[in-house]
Amino acid sequence: MIKAAIIGASGYTGAELIRLLEPRDDVQLILATSETYKGQAASGLYPNLAGPNDIIYSSYAGPDTASSADIVFAALPHGKSMDVVAGLIKAGKKVIDLSGDFRLPDPKMYKDWYGVKHSQTGLLPAAVYGLPEIDLGDIANASLVSNPGCYPTSAILAMAPAVKNNDVYCQDIIVNSISGVSGAGREANQKTHFCARSDSVTAYKTGGTHQHIPEIEVYLSELAGEDAKISFTPHLGPFSRGIYTTAYADLTEDLSAEDIYDVYRESYKDSVFVKVLPPGTMPELKAVIGSNYCHLGLAVDERTGRLIVVSALDNLVKGASGQAIQNMNIMFGLPEDAGLKTIGLLP
Amino acid sequence: MIKAAIIGASGYTGAELIRLLEPRDDVQLILATSETYKGQAASGLYPNLAGPNDIIYSSYAGPDTASSADIVFAALPHGKSMDVVAGLIKAGKKVIDLSGDFRLPDPKMYKDWYGVKHSQTGLLPAAVYGLPEIDLGDIANASLVSNPGCYPTSAILAMAPAVKNNDVYCQDIIVNSISGVSGAGREANQKTHFCARSDSVTAYKTGGTHQHIPEIEVYLSELAGEDAKISFTPHLGPFSRGIYTTAYADLTEDLSAEDIYDVYRESYKDSVFVKVLPPGTMPELKAVIGSNYCHLGLAVDERTGRLIVVSALDNLVKGASGQAIQNMNIMFGLPEDAGLKTIGLLP
Amino acid sequence: MIKAAIIGASGYTGAELIRLLEPRDDVQLILATSETYKGQAASGLYPNLAGPNDIIYSSYAGPDTASSADIVFAALPHGKSMDVVAGLIKAGKKVIDLSGDFRLPDPKMYKDWYGVKHSQTGLLPAAVYGLPEIDLGDIANASLVSNPGCYPTSAILAMAPAVKNNDVYCQDIIVNSISGVSGAGREANQKTHFCARSDSVTAYKTGGTHQHIPEIEVYLSELAGEDAKISFTPHLGPFSRGIYTTAYADLTEDLSAEDIYDVYRESYKDSVFVKVLPPGTMPELKAVIGSNYCHLGLAVDERTGRLIVVSALDNLVKGASGQAIQNMNIMFGLPEDAGLKTIGLLP
Amino acid sequence: MIKAAIIGASGYTGAELIRLLEPRDDVQLILATSETYKGQAASGLYPNLAGPNDIIYSSYAGPDTASSADIVFAALPHGKSMDVVAGLIKAGKKVIDLSGDFRLPDPKMYKDWYGVKHSQTGLLPAAVYGLPEIDLGDIANASLVSNPGCYPTSAILAMAPAVKNNDVYCQDIIVNSISGVSGAGREANQKTHFCARSDSVTAYKTGGTHQHIPEIEVYLSELAGEDAKISFTPHLGPFSRGIYTTAYADLTEDLSAEDIYDVYRESYKDSVFVKVLPPGTMPELKAVIGSNYCHLGLAVDERTGRLIVVSALDNLVKGASGQAIQNMNIMFGLPEDAGLKTIGLLP
Repeated sequence: MIKAAIIGASGYTGAELIRLLEPRDDVQLILATSETYKGQAASGLYPNLAGPNDIIYSSYAGPDTASSADIVFAALPHGKSMDVVAGLIKAGKKVIDLSGDFRLPDPKMYKDWYGVKHSQTGLLPAAVYGLPEIDLGDIANASLVSNPGCYPTSAILAMAPAVKNNDVYCQDIIVNSISGVSGAGREANQKTHFCARSDSVTAYKTGGTHQHIPEIEVYLSELAGEDAKISFTPHLGPFSRGIYTTAYADLTEDLSAEDIYDVYRESYKDSVFVKVLPPGTMPELKAVIGSNYCHLGLAVDERTGRLIVVSALDNLVKGASGQAIQNMNIMFGLPEDAGLKTIGLLP
Repeated sequence: MIKAAIIGASGYTGAELIRLLEPRDDVQLILATSETYKGQAASGLYPNLAGPNDIIYSSYAGPDTASSADIVFAALPHGKSMDVVAGLIKAGKKVIDLSGDFRLPDPKMYKDWYGVKHSQTGLLPAAVYGLPEIDLGDIANASLVSNPGCYPTSAILAMAPAVKNNDVYCQDIIVNSISGVSGAGREANQKTHFCARSDSVTAYKTGGTHQHIPEIEVYLSELAGEDAKISFTPHLGPFSRGIYTTAYADLTEDLSAEDIYDVYRESYKDSVFVKVLPPGTMPELKAVIGSNYCHLGLAVDERTGRLIVVSALDNLVKGASGQAIQNMNIMFGLPEDAGLKTIGLLP
Repeated sequence: MIKAAIIGASGYTGAELIRLLEPRDDVQLILATSETYKGQAASGLYPNLAGPNDIIYSSYAGPDTASSADIVFAALPHGKSMDVVAGLIKAGKKVIDLSGDFRLPDPKMYKDWYGVKHSQTGLLPAAVYGLPEIDLGDIANASLVSNPGCYPTSAILAMAPAVKNNDVYCQDIIVNSISGVSGAGREANQKTHFCARSDSVTAYKTGGTHQHIPEIEVYLSELAGEDAKISFTPHLGPFSRGIYTTAYADLTEDLSAEDIYDVYRESYKDSVFVKVLPPGTMPELKAVIGSNYCHLGLAVDERTGRLIVVSALDNLVKGASGQAIQNMNIMFGLPEDAGLKTIGLLP
Repeated sequence: MIKAAIIGASGYTGAELIRLLEPRDDVQLILATSETYKGQAASGLYPNLAGPNDIIYSSYAGPDTASSADIVFAALPHGKSMDVVAGLIKAGKKVIDLSGDFRLPDPKMYKDWYGVKHSQTGLLPAAVYGLPEIDLGDIANASLVSNPGCYPTSAILAMAPAVKNNDVYCQDIIVNSISGVSGAGREANQKTHFCARSDSVTAYKTGGTHQHIPEIEVYLSELAGEDAKISFTPHLGPFSRGIYTTAYADLTEDLSAEDIYDVYRESYKDSVFVKVLPPGTMPELKAVIGSNYCHLGLAVDERTGRLIVVSALDNLVKGASGQAIQNMNIMFGLPEDAGLKTIGLLP
């Protein structure tokens, strides 16, 4: 029985961790903290969590609060997470951090994009980027796993095989993504009001300003062995969950969709959660909602010599809490898909 | 390892059975039939089912086709199911029938409401109505379980405790329900077109004509020990899944919402899947979507002496395939919630 | 050219007044006030209002602010509206009040349901209830028109002909309504967050506690010539606009749907905006969205002797701002549908 | 009074023409044809059209059927339209064709992309492309106006000023669009089923295969004075109406968003329906739904030297029937926005 704690469990990623961990027989959720809602039932915020063993939020008063935990999930906002994580690591805990605080190896880059000075630069080298399918570090033996961002998960899974295989130029990638409103978080404001978002689409943080851009570039560069550069435009769509990413890149040589399909299939042949659809089939976002799966679709535009890769995932599962649990499974020697076998909710 | 077969697996309830059974380690899905799509992958119809062990529809050529199955789910349209079920029962199979064919004990009533003559009247007495929470028959030892309709599940769970306890008059119950579009089935027509249903609501089969009416009346009558009579109006709402039922009944005496709450809590104290919310809290439909839970909310209108009970459930899970699996669990001595612990998908 | 002013133009009903009045050639919008947003463009809150003559909110400093207006729309919250309205009336203005402040003739009733003491009881007798189709007062010559609530418009239009004709018992009417989220207003909170409302339904103010109940009862009673009593349950549905009401009442005698149809058609034969659909056809909510129309559908449940009437309207148009403009048209001798001819947005 | 006829009035663009023309006092709709539904009321297909003067579909038996019409809208599928249009032109009628049949000047290009041989090549030179804001021909004096496609309207309005001003390279434009389901037409199939589309997104006709590509290229090339080339990926989103296009192009020199804003504002200064939003503001799709407006948003990604232009419009109004009526207004010397002043439906 793995004892798990969640620090910052009142936001959407925290609630999703509860939703996914609660039903498990091999994991015991021993702690879920929230300073704002301490003493209150989680089901008061998330009525889906109503149940016989209703979780009550408690306060976090430092690493001792989580002393009996085998694994701690930090689901705090960026900037707030790094010191909490550092305290837990110092106390010998294994930590999976869902914030952006340990995703960028370079503290200057962090400062430039997040607008916050990094206070725990000494910990950065130890943080392993937790995107299991591209296998850039030793997640199994890590003490600190930095869980990828939702958009980066969708963009990197979309482009990794082509980039790694030098099938595309890395300097000229365009990533166009549309996300469910849950990506904007639990805060109620005019942008997240139902009447603003229903039947609407809007682009935001345009002009290459989203803080997920350097994360995508760093890891694609690592895979490519050269500097990658992307133009990224995120959008909000009229749905709660999911990210649908359409990525464009110029092909380095004359390749067909079938050629690319072979590359992708080979690349993901051991990945339980990534399904590469055959050429001619494009992902349906809904097919992955509620699941940890990522579906990929491939097309080649021969007129313009461009590869188009489409990825679909649930931003709160594969894009956040599900992936965190996948990382936990790897860290504890469990099957990668333990507790994550739920199939997407369709129809 | 329980070997399960699904006859008629290309409709929504069949696909939902696959979705719920596939991830289980203790159940093996050995057969999924569809005459229309035989030889085709289920994931061609339901892209969420894409996976390494993709299910291929086969043809059903009689009970022998399912000879190695321990349990057969019949997910056929009403009128088509009864003969298939009879053949399987004759061959000694345990069967859970998701159609309406064995829900009404009286063949004349069946003919009146379904417009079809019942061809297997001899089997009707053996059929056990599979609504575990009201426990009207011996599901555990049944060979043939008749799985309740989606609306009846929502209406009966809403009214059963009050009716059984004689807290309301049974002759004057009004049941107003709104269902997700999946309730209208997979058939593509102008009524199920996205552009007709998005942002819309419509009443249908009004004037007391829906075939689920006698089912609700029969089982509420059994619980009441007297004849129950309901006015039922179903609506389609702009969402895929879920039924939200608001039921009205005149109180037999001066009772408060707290009194009623005590009755309901007591009545459902051993029911894993039914959550009675405290007075003042009303269910959110979304909180149960993707799960086998049913949430109940209670209110008393003192000015008019009326009880209002609200129920929320997922029509494809607790209203169909999840409940069928719950019945299977009971028939095989498994914990009632085996494979059904998923919590509703919110946000 | 009619000069119109809107006091309180930053809420949804105020914005809808702008949306409907701006394109008119015969009305000039000379003032739109908002204390919170004064000096800001309306299009900053409502991007649909972006245009060459962008409206800037100004402050309201008493009746003089609107001195050149021929008509003033008060779109303020209940409790805040009455004193403003009284000031305007004293200054000789014609006023259409969209709040609940002048809808109930009895100040005690107002206090009981709105929780606020009425400060302008002297004005109550002069207020004419502005539901043109039931014609209970002299709108054309009124100085103060009290614009009906959204739910009351839908419920009264649904039941008026039957009640007036003594076709149903008035003591036992059940009104079940589902409204778009815009009915909950512009305030951003957890209840109006997109992720809470999408794909969800919830009942609220259950148990006969909604402040629209006495309004419905007062005017149905007036039509019936005896006391009407209703049980009313409002719900929020996953759409921005619209109210879909399903009303149930016991028939006083054996009447068919066709009989009722004749009564309704006769009753609304001069009403431009009310369409009575033939028996067998039920309204589609979407068909009236964006328009001032109300569609009615009729059914009789012969088994239970009950009439079911369904009404569909846009809560912000026929349920609020469109109806207010319809009243303005009547007050100024214009065709009732001037500026209100837009047909519902479907598909 | 302009007498208007619609040939092929049962599809979405035909129904939208009825919806927009019916309320006008200066236009009389004298004919709406449908071979499939002849003799039936339009309101049977589109319940929003229910009204006192309900339109009945009639059959089209050649130009004589429309002999008294001043203007004929052809709202037929591509391939079916050209011969009908030719007959009407020959009979001396003014025609606005909403199909793709007269949009491409080169019959070979038409054959390549539409898969149909053009049977009326002689008429192609006379057809004027009806996108009033870019003013490529003499719409006012045209007999045959070819109404632009929905995606081309959104893409061309987005890129025209930059392309015309040589601010971007034309060879490397990426157009990523998401459309409402009405773009897929009225046909009910598994792709347009509510349960497939709700909460989902899917790319389609990927790899540069959509028939709107040459249309975009032809007119951008004309504006640029050199060959333009685009990669275009259309998506379906979970909403009925609207197209949201995000276009990417490499800047030819170092320009800021403000520089580009000046170019666009100047370019559209006389366009009633195109609103260029200031840098930092991105369109909300919902703000234009139900209206003939197109909103544009501008951003420059300085890191990658790329211009991003976003456009939002209603595919059935500015993307089809509203634009057709705008063209009619121009052809008849009416104000461009006659009958088209409705503001977008928000909230």
